[in-house]
Amino acid sequence: MTSSDQPETPRRPRHLISLDALSTAQVVRLLDRADALREEWLARHHKLDLLQGRTVINLFFENSTRTRTSFDLAAKRLGADVINFDIASSSTAKGESLVDTLHTLEAMHCDAFVVRHKENGTAEFLARHVRGTASVINAGDGNNAHPTQGLLDVYTIRRHRPDFSALRVLICGDILHSRVARSDIHALRALGVGTLRVCAPANLLPSQAELPGCEIVEDFDTALAGIDVVIMLRLQKERMEQAFVPSEQAYYARYGLDARRLRLARPDCLVMHPGPINREVEIASAVADGSQSCILEQVSNGVFVRMAVLAELLDS
Amino acid sequence: MTSSDQPETPRRPRHLISLDALSTAQVVRLLDRADALREEWLARHHKLDLLQGRTVINLFFENSTRTRTSFDLAAKRLGADVINFDIASSSTAKGESLVDTLHTLEAMHCDAFVVRHKENGTAEFLARHVRGTASVINAGDGNNAHPTQGLLDVYTIRRHRPDFSALRVLICGDILHSRVARSDIHALRALGVGTLRVCAPANLLPSQAELPGCEIVEDFDTALAGIDVVIMLRLQKERMEQAFVPSEQAYYARYGLDARRLRLARPDCLVMHPGPINREVEIASAVADGSQSCILEQVSNGVFVRMAVLAELLDS
Amino acid sequence: MTSSDQPETPRRPRHLISLDALSTAQVVRLLDRADALREEWLARHHKLDLLQGRTVINLFFENSTRTRTSFDLAAKRLGADVINFDIASSSTAKGESLVDTLHTLEAMHCDAFVVRHKENGTAEFLARHVRGTASVINAGDGNNAHPTQGLLDVYTIRRHRPDFSALRVLICGDILHSRVARSDIHALRALGVGTLRVCAPANLLPSQAELPGCEIVEDFDTALAGIDVVIMLRLQKERMEQAFVPSEQAYYARYGLDARRLRLARPDCLVMHPGPINREVEIASAVADGSQSCILEQVSNGVFVRMAVLAELLDS
Repeated sequence: MTSSDQPETPRRPRHLISLDALSTAQVVRLLDRADALREEWLARHHKLDLLQGRTVINLFFENSTRTRTSFDLAAKRLGADVINFDIASSSTAKGESLVDTLHTLEAMHCDAFVVRHKENGTAEFLARHVRGTASVINAGDGNNAHPTQGLLDVYTIRRHRPDFSALRVLICGDILHSRVARSDIHALRALGVGTLRVCAPANLLPSQAELPGCEIVEDFDTALAGIDVVIMLRLQKERMEQAFVPSEQAYYARYGLDARRLRLARPDCLVMHPGPINREVEIASAVADGSQSCILEQVSNGVFVRMAVLAELLDS
Repeated sequence: MTSSDQPETPRRPRHLISLDALSTAQVVRLLDRADALREEWLARHHKLDLLQGRTVINLFFENSTRTRTSFDLAAKRLGADVINFDIASSSTAKGESLVDTLHTLEAMHCDAFVVRHKENGTAEFLARHVRGTASVINAGDGNNAHPTQGLLDVYTIRRHRPDFSALRVLICGDILHSRVARSDIHALRALGVGTLRVCAPANLLPSQAELPGCEIVEDFDTALAGIDVVIMLRLQKERMEQAFVPSEQAYYARYGLDARRLRLARPDCLVMHPGPINREVEIASAVADGSQSCILEQVSNGVFVRMAVLAELLDS
Repeated sequence: MTSSDQPETPRRPRHLISLDALSTAQVVRLLDRADALREEWLARHHKLDLLQGRTVINLFFENSTRTRTSFDLAAKRLGADVINFDIASSSTAKGESLVDTLHTLEAMHCDAFVVRHKENGTAEFLARHVRGTASVINAGDGNNAHPTQGLLDVYTIRRHRPDFSALRVLICGDILHSRVARSDIHALRALGVGTLRVCAPANLLPSQAELPGCEIVEDFDTALAGIDVVIMLRLQKERMEQAFVPSEQAYYARYGLDARRLRLARPDCLVMHPGPINREVEIASAVADGSQSCILEQVSNGVFVRMAVLAELLDS
């Protein structure tokens, strides 16, 4: 994966809403910048001054430990100030619309809005309503997109397997409701992944039209054959309440990644998961904590990738 | 509006509780400092070092997006650290009194307390109990005062209409319950406003004694004649529950600022509102978002005015 | 109290879980460092750069105004970034285990975890599970330990009475449920306190085995005779609900420190309390606010002691 076929510096994106809006060159540039920031951070463990004086707003309408903290740390380590919005206690409770809140914060010279919302399209909606020069970053909208997760996943893969054209990747779990799967598919295809396979229970699988370039394999054992990277998805508890899944045990028996199943993949197959993991629901503890697991490395890389995104979007 | 009749530098206030405690020279000095800080910020977009090492405590007993965020940003952009207190989860829940909380935070060398509370007089009460050199800033107490709102309103007006003596200003809405109206009246009178008119439903109007220097006009159409600046107040939802107002529709029909009514004022009349606005309750969207609206400019100026207040009170 | 019998610089501790794990030399070194940081802070009132680029995580599973704010300020004044975790809204709500949360935050290069939890042993449990170089600081676990409170208490005493060998200290209140008492006992014994006396209702007194080196005196008047320092403990409201204490009035009559009782101690006896105080339950207002009270000085010193702890543990 190189950017040699794009000799010009790609246009810097204004917002980050979904990865399908980025060219391959733009994706590669973000990953390269994450590499540079990672090296600089690990060498000095000292704040950078890149976004000094800038303000990043975390607008999280859904709870999230890792994503919000990851953006918070990324912004602070670039020197920015961060304001975390507890939505329940904000003036949306007084009936102010989301757009008025956006314009109010823009008027205060806030530079970036990191938005998570359970409704698809919220980040794009806000990006359309920005009046000034602020950037909107989608930190997850419904089942639509989670672009920084897609970027950090391919970043993590690239550090181990730089040649994507030969790579066979499997994504397994509740594809239907997963914004992570959608963003991973975009990111992997942008980097020219060799084989992209998805595996899910039939009632948790979207139509083929929503899975461009993907092989669909329903049996997990079969799907694992020859795989270099397996990305397991979190099973949301509400799927069981909604009767998508009969029980955790039944799900684990068919779609849980345990040590036996992992041996069906290639011997050096990487194991990934966006977290937080449900142990013994979609993944065995022995696998999640085992030598092939990149799960904590994904977390670590997430901060560098988000630093790269903030730097690219805001560093004028 | 000059300070030529006060050639000496005015005494810097220790606290900011209510604008009636400030001399005209002190108000002008704050506005001038806001101008200087605005210019510096817009030119450099870089944190200032003025309050480095200082700690500002946001003690908000009422929810507020804009005021709390505005103070938070103002303090951070001057280099201070900010601690936001979620009062429900603080040890006042353990029964510690407000005064003991104040003394505890003072003992930790906190330098400023920004206080919002639904009870009149809370900020003044705290200011009386400060033991050391800390400053108390009233961010709104009951229906009594909201001095930084008053300052940012006259700051916004001054940027467009520097000659206050010729100015005709109208404040319309629930004057009775409005700390914004009270602080606006103090600020406008300190700057020698030409004409100051208020308009409200009879049951939302305080006595004339509480409205020094104000003409009272009950009919909104009549009140708008010849006006240079109209400040609309937010109608709190609870007014309807308390039967002060029959319905939003009825209120809007008599006291809502729509395009027709705005044409009754002078052609270049500025439209202001402290926010958050209730669209089609006290103001039409077309007016709030129209070319005469200064509402977002007020928000923007609010940060600079609060920077000026913090700098004046704390910068030793 | 000197470290002359330990001429070598003592090994720097990795975590701070309980004071019984520290040598006398390590305790003295922390207090000396608090002295140095106090002087530097009071002279310059300017952030230090010691922990620039470091991240401190406040993991508070129990509410706390003073301890959390004290750590927050201590970390910020050393230049560190601080992330405060509201546990209710974190992904532990999604069922992620505490250990997975720890590893996730470690992967993000967080350097210290300040932990408060109602269960004994939580901080130690986390310290055992740290994978990298991060430090865990116990900010209070159940009735087990509150080591920074123990340190700040002896630090406060040392500033007034540097010779511990001649000192007679009394701790009075609900010793049974008090992590403060346990840490105070460790700290005072490490510094070679002359006499250490405890006083509590019989049903709020642990066994003698849990009170090494302590005289137990049930009657408070008798216990106060000849005392140089009296440390009063907070009476938790739940003790009454659990019928440990008949009523606040009855408790105050027997174990409340009022002006009459204070005169039974030595004339210059210091009065201490970890806060927040229950006025007229365990201590009279006249005593808490009187000239012998060191209560606010304890709060003030708490920030310097926590700066010292963070600096010792993290400054590489």
